[in-house]
Amino acid sequence: MNQLSTSPRTRIPVTSRGHRTRERLLRAAESVFAERGFDQSSIAEIAGRAEAALGTFYVYFPDKKSVFIELVDELGKKLRRELAESTAGLTDRLEIERAGFLAFFQFASVHRGLYRIVRQAEFVDEPTFRRYYVELARGYVAGLEAAMDAGQIRRLDAEALAYSLMGMADFLGMRFVLWVQDGDDVERVLESAVSFMHHGLALAVQLPARRPANVSAKPRKPARKGKR
Amino acid sequence: MNQLSTSPRTRIPVTSRGHRTRERLLRAAESVFAERGFDQSSIAEIAGRAEAALGTFYVYFPDKKSVFIELVDELGKKLRRELAESTAGLTDRLEIERAGFLAFFQFASVHRGLYRIVRQAEFVDEPTFRRYYVELARGYVAGLEAAMDAGQIRRLDAEALAYSLMGMADFLGMRFVLWVQDGDDVERVLESAVSFMHHGLALAVQLPARRPANVSAKPRKPARKGKR
Repeated sequence: MNQLSTSPRTRIPVTSRGHRTRERLLRAAESVFAERGFDQSSIAEIAGRAEAALGTFYVYFPDKKSVFIELVDELGKKLRRELAESTAGLTDRLEIERAGFLAFFQFASVHRGLYRIVRQAEFVDEPTFRRYYVELARGYVAGLEAAMDAGQIRRLDAEALAYSLMGMADFLGMRFVLWVQDGDDVERVLESAVSFMHHGLALAVQLPARRPANVSAKPRKPARKGKR
Repeated sequence: MNQLSTSPRTRIPVTSRGHRTRERLLRAAESVFAERGFDQSSIAEIAGRAEAALGTFYVYFPDKKSVFIELVDELGKKLRRELAESTAGLTDRLEIERAGFLAFFQFASVHRGLYRIVRQAEFVDEPTFRRYYVELARGYVAGLEAAMDAGQIRRLDAEALAYSLMGMADFLGMRFVLWVQDGDDVERVLESAVSFMHHGLALAVQLPARRPANVSAKPRKPARKGKR
């Protein structure tokens, strides 16, 4: 029997075999929840798909809800880690955004149940659902603010930008990763989205004066520190 | 008894009293589904909240799923109509986008169950879920393409832009309408999002040459037709 440390919610194995079993249970839960939805999923099917005994499931998770919550938190953490890794070494915010989009689409194509699982979370446990986005936004906001301070992008409300960019990635991933169709030019889609985002963020853009009350007609910060 | 015409799924009343009853049932369904989720909602509660007899429910809808599908389709249609009305008379695409964002946030603040209901649709009836977004995108794409043809905005992939803008509105509405917190500066958020979007779409922007392989460093179309 594995040695176990305990947490209020789930048990964290300390042996590598225990880690592998728990990982198999999480991946099985990911596929069962994505396929059937939370209400129609059973612990028996999760255990079965993980090739584990029912009793083994209960060694790691007290109930169905706890494995679900753990799964959403784990997917969020994995996504944030992959975003961080994909942009490691990049210093230019526009390059970081482009790489982040690509990493997100890649993640969504590997974790095809991601959307369905996160959307279910709203009904299974609303705080878990919010936490998924709030944590994602937190890192985003910090990165955008640093880029504004460094004069790499325009100064705008960082949280508004973070949710704008997250929303873009989410909807583009839904349409062009999950619902991809024959005839979609995914390359062109990506270039268009990145171009839209780059123009939206970049310094030193000059909009034509279109109308007196133009929302963009505020004094614009000049490019600072020669970052160009 | 009302006169009724029949459709494969639901019955459409032809008297004004019938219309009012059906409308009450739909609004009751909206609040019950948003609150409890589809699986935990009952026809009895929907009828009760509409102050209608159970038998009256079945005059209009054969079952719980049919009223749910009707509700999602109706919310989509209403949203598209309100977007169209809010932008009627505007000819400049950037003004249209700004007005559309505002109309969407307004709609989300009135129909507070919108997000939860649409998200449930993925599990209740996937085609209904997709239809909601595909129909929304269809009008969007047509408007964006017309604006590109008229030289009002840059030429990019219109469907990529449509999903980008829909995703922005969706996530901003989630964060700043549904989850609004003390201390949120919603005015600033809106101005930032609109500014981001305007810069992203507008013609005649000049990006600094940042790096050789810059995705935006393609030959840029000059502003056409003096539309400025």
